[in-house]
Amino acid sequence: MKKYNISVIKGDGIGPEIVDEAIKVLDAVSGACDFTLDYEEYLMGGIAIDETGVPLPPETVPGVLASDACLFGSIGGEKWDDLPRELRPETGLLKLREELGVYANLRPAIVYDELVNASTLKPEVIQGCDIMVVRELIGGIYFGQPRANDGQKAYNTMVYTKDEIIRIGKQAFEFAMKRDKRVCSVDKANVLEVSQLWRDTMNELSKDYPAVELTHMYVDNAAMQLVRNPKQFDVIVTGNIFGDILSDTASMVVGSIGLLPSASSGDKTAVYEPIHGSAPDIAGQGIANPIATIESAAMMLRYSLGEEKAADMITNAIKNVLKDGYRTKDLAEFDAKEVLTTTEMGDVIANYI
Amino acid sequence: MKKYNISVIKGDGIGPEIVDEAIKVLDAVSGACDFTLDYEEYLMGGIAIDETGVPLPPETVPGVLASDACLFGSIGGEKWDDLPRELRPETGLLKLREELGVYANLRPAIVYDELVNASTLKPEVIQGCDIMVVRELIGGIYFGQPRANDGQKAYNTMVYTKDEIIRIGKQAFEFAMKRDKRVCSVDKANVLEVSQLWRDTMNELSKDYPAVELTHMYVDNAAMQLVRNPKQFDVIVTGNIFGDILSDTASMVVGSIGLLPSASSGDKTAVYEPIHGSAPDIAGQGIANPIATIESAAMMLRYSLGEEKAADMITNAIKNVLKDGYRTKDLAEFDAKEVLTTTEMGDVIANYI
Ligand SMILES: CC(C)[C@H](C(=O)O)[C@@H](O)C(=O)O
Ligand SMILES: CC(C)[C@H](C(=O)O)[C@@H](O)C(=O)O
Repeated sequence: MKKYNISVIKGDGIGPEIVDEAIKVLDAVSGACDFTLDYEEYLMGGIAIDETGVPLPPETVPGVLASDACLFGSIGGEKWDDLPRELRPETGLLKLREELGVYANLRPAIVYDELVNASTLKPEVIQGCDIMVVRELIGGIYFGQPRANDGQKAYNTMVYTKDEIIRIGKQAFEFAMKRDKRVCSVDKANVLEVSQLWRDTMNELSKDYPAVELTHMYVDNAAMQLVRNPKQFDVIVTGNIFGDILSDTASMVVGSIGLLPSASSGDKTAVYEPIHGSAPDIAGQGIANPIATIESAAMMLRYSLGEEKAADMITNAIKNVLKDGYRTKDLAEFDAKEVLTTTEMGDVIANYI
Repeated sequence: MKKYNISVIKGDGIGPEIVDEAIKVLDAVSGACDFTLDYEEYLMGGIAIDETGVPLPPETVPGVLASDACLFGSIGGEKWDDLPRELRPETGLLKLREELGVYANLRPAIVYDELVNASTLKPEVIQGCDIMVVRELIGGIYFGQPRANDGQKAYNTMVYTKDEIIRIGKQAFEFAMKRDKRVCSVDKANVLEVSQLWRDTMNELSKDYPAVELTHMYVDNAAMQLVRNPKQFDVIVTGNIFGDILSDTASMVVGSIGLLPSASSGDKTAVYEPIHGSAPDIAGQGIANPIATIESAAMMLRYSLGEEKAADMITNAIKNVLKDGYRTKDLAEFDAKEVLTTTEMGDVIANYI
């Protein structure tokens, strides 16, 4: 029987609650299929600060690298917001991404038919929407040098090399090949040199993918088009900060942020996590929606472990659970037949498998 | 009788058509009130490239500075997209902004009750929405040095000084004093040093405005919140590139982009323009919506000329025209009683005055 080692970072806020439910569902599906999963927990974020004094303890990166994939909850909270930058939860996350080399952040934004009313956008605008946002994750202005703040003047550097752009571009084109074969590259080439290199490189790369249609859009227009007509997009590829903004916009457009998973992947490993944050305000109350994390676990099965069948089983279970009207509190207004707690939702999904 | 000198930049695409209608309405209102307007035309953008070889001819900046205010249409089009960067229409616009010192871009995003259905967002989400986006316009990554692209590596610099932040922050707080007394400052202080200085400076500045509530939001969250619940905002203040993205998002959220004006103002002069672009695809067909430009003319009367009454007359005329069901083609689906051409719309608004 196949055995996989999964590193687990539960993190802060609702992180521990939702990761526990994902593990419950993973165990249900691995029991039904032909593999077992071993879990090893690591610290990162606020809890790591509290327990070890730093947001990314030294054993976490090697631990994740030694595993087959990493399942991650969420980090952060007001409690740690006033610490110096190098001691903040976010700094731990950025360091983790960098040291793991997970350069591609993949964020599917898919509208569930059952929850087409849960968006603030009109149902006819979003029904059937299925976007994959491919965000570069370990370059750009997040990591660019030099950077400084002397209290009178401060600056950061948005930088990309051609190799970095090719690497993320390939991911986008490969995804497009398995989807609707359309890539929209987002930049600000009418103003920024770094965007001009981005655009030129994407154009060059697109010659290797003649079956894929490449278009370009300025970031301001892309933000607008996501609201105006999100269905026009198939794969969106963009840099770190633009991707940060646009993927959040896309998730809000499709509506149910409690349902959306993500993967951060590189050549060595991948981290799977819900796109929503740690929501400290509702932590510990048993009302968090675990579905985004459970979907992230399904992505992990699909992309890192190659267990497609198990992944499909989870995805289908979630669809059926939603169709049958089970909801957590965040979605209680949207055709709920029964409103469940976090653990109950995990139980129901595990049972449907 | 008071006399004002208005510099006029019609620009490219639909620019000339819509500016002509704004002038028609300005003349109607100045006739009814107690002042006259003299207009002087200047070139900028693609038409300036075609006629003079450069996107910003030397006489334009002094001409605008010598006038009481500038009314501007729009620039750009595919025709000029492949020129080298220093010869593009956008470069002319950026240079104009920089040389005029118009550091504050003001973009009201207001929902007209008559057109509450014209947004892709649900009416109940946007009805009554009234946001003022205050975007820093001549700093940040748009103008930061160093910047370069050698074909293998490219970079730009996002930079702000404390003085630049104070200058734009004051604008935001002053606006808030005349509105709902709430400023939301948008940054990415969890990642960027330049944003940390931005946030610290806004906090410091807020001590001078004890009546105004200052909050902070990360840019990714702000993009999300604009879609989730735009009514939570009063004044948003942010840097150049974040403002570029968020103000376009805000305008799409409130829906009718053909209605939204903007002002770019500094210590010496101000430029008034619609937020929509030059729309080359519909140029010359007489179907462009002139209302955003006419609203921009009203902003000019209000903020640069102090002609509040004339400004109100225009704003009311537009409201009544919309209430009576007059629409240009872009809004024909939304409770139109009569669909008008660009010039007819200008005529009707002038008649209502
Ligand atoms: C927490 C923060 C540093 C992070 C980012 O900006 O990348 C988050 O917004 C995300 O998108 O994962
Ligand atoms: C045309 C372009 C350079 C400009 C900008 O990015 O500032 C435009 O998008 C705007 O918002 O006025």
